[in-house]
Amino acid sequence: MDLSIPRLGEPRIASPFRKTARAGEWTGRFIPEGARLLLDLELPVPPSSDAAASPAALELAGPRESIFFDPSKLRVGIVTCGGLCPGINNVIRSLVLQLHHRYGVRRIVGFQYGFAGLAPSRRQPVVDLDPAVVREIHHDGGSLLGTSRGPQAPEVMVDTLERMGVGLLLAIGGDGTLRGLDAIHAEIARRGLKIAVVAVPKTIDNDIPLVDRSFGFDTAFSIAVQSIRAAHTEAQAHQNGIGLVRLMGRHTGYIAATATVAEPDVNCVLVPEVAFALDGDHGLLAWLRRRLESRGHAVIVVAEGAGQDLVGGEGADPSGNRRFGDVGALLKECIRTDLGACGIEHTLKYIDPSYQIRSVPANPNDALFCSFLARHAVHAGISGRTCVLVAMRHDRYVHLPIREAVLGRKTLDPAGDLWQAVLESTGQPPTWGNAQ
Amino acid sequence: MDLSIPRLGEPRIASPFRKTARAGEWTGRFIPEGARLLLDLELPVPPSSDAAASPAALELAGPRESIFFDPSKLRVGIVTCGGLCPGINNVIRSLVLQLHHRYGVRRIVGFQYGFAGLAPSRRQPVVDLDPAVVREIHHDGGSLLGTSRGPQAPEVMVDTLERMGVGLLLAIGGDGTLRGLDAIHAEIARRGLKIAVVAVPKTIDNDIPLVDRSFGFDTAFSIAVQSIRAAHTEAQAHQNGIGLVRLMGRHTGYIAATATVAEPDVNCVLVPEVAFALDGDHGLLAWLRRRLESRGHAVIVVAEGAGQDLVGGEGADPSGNRRFGDVGALLKECIRTDLGACGIEHTLKYIDPSYQIRSVPANPNDALFCSFLARHAVHAGISGRTCVLVAMRHDRYVHLPIREAVLGRKTLDPAGDLWQAVLESTGQPPTWGNAQ
Amino acid sequence: MDLSIPRLGEPRIASPFRKTARAGEWTGRFIPEGARLLLDLELPVPPSSDAAASPAALELAGPRESIFFDPSKLRVGIVTCGGLCPGINNVIRSLVLQLHHRYGVRRIVGFQYGFAGLAPSRRQPVVDLDPAVVREIHHDGGSLLGTSRGPQAPEVMVDTLERMGVGLLLAIGGDGTLRGLDAIHAEIARRGLKIAVVAVPKTIDNDIPLVDRSFGFDTAFSIAVQSIRAAHTEAQAHQNGIGLVRLMGRHTGYIAATATVAEPDVNCVLVPEVAFALDGDHGLLAWLRRRLESRGHAVIVVAEGAGQDLVGGEGADPSGNRRFGDVGALLKECIRTDLGACGIEHTLKYIDPSYQIRSVPANPNDALFCSFLARHAVHAGISGRTCVLVAMRHDRYVHLPIREAVLGRKTLDPAGDLWQAVLESTGQPPTWGNAQ
Amino acid sequence: MDLSIPRLGEPRIASPFRKTARAGEWTGRFIPEGARLLLDLELPVPPSSDAAASPAALELAGPRESIFFDPSKLRVGIVTCGGLCPGINNVIRSLVLQLHHRYGVRRIVGFQYGFAGLAPSRRQPVVDLDPAVVREIHHDGGSLLGTSRGPQAPEVMVDTLERMGVGLLLAIGGDGTLRGLDAIHAEIARRGLKIAVVAVPKTIDNDIPLVDRSFGFDTAFSIAVQSIRAAHTEAQAHQNGIGLVRLMGRHTGYIAATATVAEPDVNCVLVPEVAFALDGDHGLLAWLRRRLESRGHAVIVVAEGAGQDLVGGEGADPSGNRRFGDVGALLKECIRTDLGACGIEHTLKYIDPSYQIRSVPANPNDALFCSFLARHAVHAGISGRTCVLVAMRHDRYVHLPIREAVLGRKTLDPAGDLWQAVLESTGQPPTWGNAQ
Repeated sequence: MDLSIPRLGEPRIASPFRKTARAGEWTGRFIPEGARLLLDLELPVPPSSDAAASPAALELAGPRESIFFDPSKLRVGIVTCGGLCPGINNVIRSLVLQLHHRYGVRRIVGFQYGFAGLAPSRRQPVVDLDPAVVREIHHDGGSLLGTSRGPQAPEVMVDTLERMGVGLLLAIGGDGTLRGLDAIHAEIARRGLKIAVVAVPKTIDNDIPLVDRSFGFDTAFSIAVQSIRAAHTEAQAHQNGIGLVRLMGRHTGYIAATATVAEPDVNCVLVPEVAFALDGDHGLLAWLRRRLESRGHAVIVVAEGAGQDLVGGEGADPSGNRRFGDVGALLKECIRTDLGACGIEHTLKYIDPSYQIRSVPANPNDALFCSFLARHAVHAGISGRTCVLVAMRHDRYVHLPIREAVLGRKTLDPAGDLWQAVLESTGQPPTWGNAQ
Repeated sequence: MDLSIPRLGEPRIASPFRKTARAGEWTGRFIPEGARLLLDLELPVPPSSDAAASPAALELAGPRESIFFDPSKLRVGIVTCGGLCPGINNVIRSLVLQLHHRYGVRRIVGFQYGFAGLAPSRRQPVVDLDPAVVREIHHDGGSLLGTSRGPQAPEVMVDTLERMGVGLLLAIGGDGTLRGLDAIHAEIARRGLKIAVVAVPKTIDNDIPLVDRSFGFDTAFSIAVQSIRAAHTEAQAHQNGIGLVRLMGRHTGYIAATATVAEPDVNCVLVPEVAFALDGDHGLLAWLRRRLESRGHAVIVVAEGAGQDLVGGEGADPSGNRRFGDVGALLKECIRTDLGACGIEHTLKYIDPSYQIRSVPANPNDALFCSFLARHAVHAGISGRTCVLVAMRHDRYVHLPIREAVLGRKTLDPAGDLWQAVLESTGQPPTWGNAQ
Repeated sequence: MDLSIPRLGEPRIASPFRKTARAGEWTGRFIPEGARLLLDLELPVPPSSDAAASPAALELAGPRESIFFDPSKLRVGIVTCGGLCPGINNVIRSLVLQLHHRYGVRRIVGFQYGFAGLAPSRRQPVVDLDPAVVREIHHDGGSLLGTSRGPQAPEVMVDTLERMGVGLLLAIGGDGTLRGLDAIHAEIARRGLKIAVVAVPKTIDNDIPLVDRSFGFDTAFSIAVQSIRAAHTEAQAHQNGIGLVRLMGRHTGYIAATATVAEPDVNCVLVPEVAFALDGDHGLLAWLRRRLESRGHAVIVVAEGAGQDLVGGEGADPSGNRRFGDVGALLKECIRTDLGACGIEHTLKYIDPSYQIRSVPANPNDALFCSFLARHAVHAGISGRTCVLVAMRHDRYVHLPIREAVLGRKTLDPAGDLWQAVLESTGQPPTWGNAQ
Repeated sequence: MDLSIPRLGEPRIASPFRKTARAGEWTGRFIPEGARLLLDLELPVPPSSDAAASPAALELAGPRESIFFDPSKLRVGIVTCGGLCPGINNVIRSLVLQLHHRYGVRRIVGFQYGFAGLAPSRRQPVVDLDPAVVREIHHDGGSLLGTSRGPQAPEVMVDTLERMGVGLLLAIGGDGTLRGLDAIHAEIARRGLKIAVVAVPKTIDNDIPLVDRSFGFDTAFSIAVQSIRAAHTEAQAHQNGIGLVRLMGRHTGYIAATATVAEPDVNCVLVPEVAFALDGDHGLLAWLRRRLESRGHAVIVVAEGAGQDLVGGEGADPSGNRRFGDVGALLKECIRTDLGACGIEHTLKYIDPSYQIRSVPANPNDALFCSFLARHAVHAGISGRTCVLVAMRHDRYVHLPIREAVLGRKTLDPAGDLWQAVLESTGQPPTWGNAQ
């Protein structure tokens, strides 16, 4: 694993912080070049005699004493891509304020509606961004700049950056966006341009490798808790009442699992990481019949990517993401059919809060987090780093090479703390018979 | 219209309030028998010389100096029927506290899971209710007693009441429940029993005739506002973004209209009271294309009972309510097809918050309202009134005969203040071409 | 009581609604001149043979077919005065939208910081108001225009109106503001000017005579409920824990009483309308000792105007309102001293949420209410009515002459439903021994 | 620094998890004895050739394969001490569920009202705890067991533990509680008893050394944000409006600083870690006058422990904590006097939300956190560890010796990320002239 961060060149310009620092006004600290954080922080058991000469380590984020770009000449572009996620506007706001107030950058533009805004054929005008424009946007969900799914040709996008004189592109986006940025970076490198590309990764599912936490996730599972409460209330109020909640999580069950431990009224959580069978003595349907028999109601939470072997999703969306089959609809149908066939009267209420979760403003925890991510993204870009994302690891802010982040996905460890807490809280079986 | 209230007999027992009042402890006021409220309170224009000798009037609710039942001997049954609605637990709690603390009734039972709890074949045990059991239930949504849809045979239910010695049945339920109570009352009368039947009407749709407001409605439209905000955020964030929200309202658009005036980001509201056409120059789809052309996004709210001529719902649910076609799914499909055919790229997000709205606890406004409704229901029943519901009219609490309440439904007046406010707020056309 | 509304002159101009109505676009209804609502709607018991020939009645609010001002020439001024209250921005927004979109008024100015903005010596520039300026303000608490307490000389303010050519002054304010408007109206009349003065009354205490409900009150007591919960949690968590909450209510206990019935964890409510004694066997302190002895904790809510005979407030604020003594501080001190003297270890937590309540945005219920009040205020002013306020009575919108509204205050009826519900909910004594 | 954890003896009993694991039902992982986490995870710059042979490391929390206590014989006591904090009930609930369901402990008692419940003279009966008792308590703020401040004699408390046969005392409390537990542990050791003492540290101020985060902190600063919004609304609404918010934080400004970065409407934050002067050109009062002159309003947040050199607090509370002077009252008074002397009309609104913050239920983030802390506390105690607390460090759960945690306090680093973000957000001066 190569955790080094590409650089556009030597940083030779004194940070404007230093100037003010000299005057006694800046009381902060520069991060020295070379400062790194251990990737892995557990000591081996039993202790290993031959510690790695150079253990894997991540570059610490933060302001640098010498920077690459001259803020007075730099033009910065900001773009937001993919689905909505709480906190996008907080990130935009803090990017603009940091660029403007701390570094003195005066030329900041927003590309509208995702990568489409970088394709001249789409005729989306850019938006000038300054502190006045972004002052209040953190109280709103959504994205001031709009968003869209799907890539554009890297050549076209780099043409736009070049034509507009953008030296630093700050992008907020997920998996597909990171791949797009990687392609943009390759095209920039091919042309030998001095344009930096920095990402604030956005995935409400919290599934980026090496990244402990992504922005919006805290807000998302906190709001999901409300749906669980609603499902529990409906389930309890009916004889053989079933509350079925579909939550986000295409490749991982983090939101479903986290919300369940936070609000322990759930009796079963289905996630992509743990296969389940519908039929058979150890299948979900038999479990549900036993649960109704003994307790009279049940609350089931399902992550949207669970049980894809049973649903048969196919195709891909404009971002190139695989289309997912609708596991919520499948469960609803199978449960009704099964209980009907067994002559069990029941009431099933189905709740899908996805868009309500995606569109709320960031809660205070995420607001705080977004402001730090944005500040660190600016520091990273101004210093000449490129093809880099800023992230939290071990509760610290670090730089990650984009190419590592697109290599896979982080998933729930079924033997780990979180999933074990789910099993304790729900009392559900750890395995589901002959599920694949 | 006969607004008189049936009575089981002459109230000859002194209210226990009086006793304490004599001792100087009760500082309230009895409502004199005969106290009534004008049904209609506008003066005619031009003034009419021959005022009605006896204008239509509603009996005022409240404690009476003489009551019919001896609280020390009375057994009271409580039942909750139909779909969930914020405030049910508040009503149960206040019924029990008023019966126990103010009147000294010591035998209160809850029938579980709606009318099914009154049918011995269902083997639902009754629940003893006292202040300790209900102390904290007002903080939870749902119903402590559970609920179900659908009727049971009146003979069977009256058998149960007779066998258990219930003298007063307090029921919380909607349209179907009121019809069921009417049938129970008829059977009681046929047998010459002294059992009173009193309802606290429950309809989240606010559609009971003569009743200005039903409990849970304030909470419902307040929560619906959150879905409208989410839809607006999603719509604004995409090019040609469309937020489509389906809200409750089978026969009337009160929730949809009220939420829209409270949160004026909606561009079009569709309700059962105003027909709309999909096609044609003045149809919804053409309107939507023009809106996207001019503004780039749209928020549409649709009440579940709107456009039923277009959807073709059929059949009936266990309560005998007509099954409704899914107008939300229809709109989603038609919009996608139409815009696709016109080559208009768009993003549609569909939000259906129904069960989350139904299951939340009452907000403070409804909590207050529920506590008054419950107190008045107890006063009405203890005084020997029967086949009666308690309601708010002109901001006052009154008695209404159940037989009048089941004769029709209250609907939005398209020329009235509320709908006119919707038209002003949305800017939508008041009529939709050749809609029926 | 004279409930007639002053008029500037005959309304001879056709409402612009009519024009569009002719084209088939307006589907609303005009309120005929002369339409009135009965002030009192209970029928007498026993029935009175001689009904009043002309019972007291209030003019109905709403759009008129003929109006007084020519919207194309009219200049409108808006001003907000006194303390903050949830909903002020909603009213401002709806005033502007109604004036602009429905009547076509293009010249709307906001005077800043209350009546001070009408006094040229204060050099507060006016703000031009149009739909773009007010689009999002309803999501914020406070007042877009700012506010202040205290009057200015009517002559100076009318000079300003005359100089600026303002034909209609729309004011949002409370008691002192209404008196100020009355004085402005008198000065206008003295000069024979054609300037209308219309108020949307603002009192978070809900104490305007003849008015059933004032805007912001629903939000206020709903937020107050949170403080009661906090006080209850603190009280329960400690041996002899006492939670003491001071709520708004200088002349009346509506907020305290309403919040208590909505959140029944309160054990004692003190309001201006019911005197209480501290000492003696039937005084508050003895009651508290008994309560701690029997239950181990207590929650007390006190309206800021309660017990003023005990506190001895004096002087007046800039609006001419009497300064109030701090009854919360008094109670805190007396309780500590008394329990200390009795050797009762205890923990007292004091909560005063006033400014947090005043500054929140309107909840959906108040947002709805504010939008109707504002629309009706515009209809009233455009029609040439003056020295008038718009209000809710019997759940309908009506006009009230300002001179009647400043004659007294609405207070809680200790024998009425609300206070009786408080007594039931708290179990507190209805009287406090020898309190005055 | 000695980070080793005392043990009662060799763990020789097989964890009940293993048994079920063998049957294929437990899919979790045991933490091997000896597993540790690096205390410090930054790599030195420049790289150091001689890495420490044994770097400082913390024991990882989690279930052990061999445990010390026999769950079938163990009696566990739970106690909560000190001020309220969001999440106490979540911790109690998870302790009980983990003990009961996972380890099979059947004898769990709660001591009431803090350490006082361990002193027989106080005659507080203990409460039996099982899953039914704690099922719903996580939805409530406060503490099921009640709390109190102040110590009791260790001998008396250990007498009680011995007499009742308690083998494991689980305590939730802050600084004073940890010192009390240390004393209890010393007394236990002196007597040679096999009683383990485990703490879940509670400090809403987040000031425990070596601990990254304490429970309730996330909820606390999130609620504090609401007070900041209120203060901002009030300040903006008045000419020279000043919103002054006093937040918790006796020794550190974490809550004040964190809430400010999360809700950036604050113009000045005062914390214990950064001295400030009131007077002089670089003092707070001059700054405020300049701010009002240029912007017309100001929002100031002050941590309760700020400026203690100016206030002169004295004495100590029952827990032995120093009593603090009321810096909020001081500022209010000084600002009024200073602006009055300068002839600057202004409006100051003072908000102190402390008890409302302390008494709310945990938000979902803290609910999740509390459940993990509680599980790990049970694992630690059952394994025979003692005088230990469970904590989060580097986003992982670890054991910390109590004796290290009471040695000092964690405070804000004025050169660190958080305080620098405060300075950027507020624009306030980093230093205040000749402040000490």
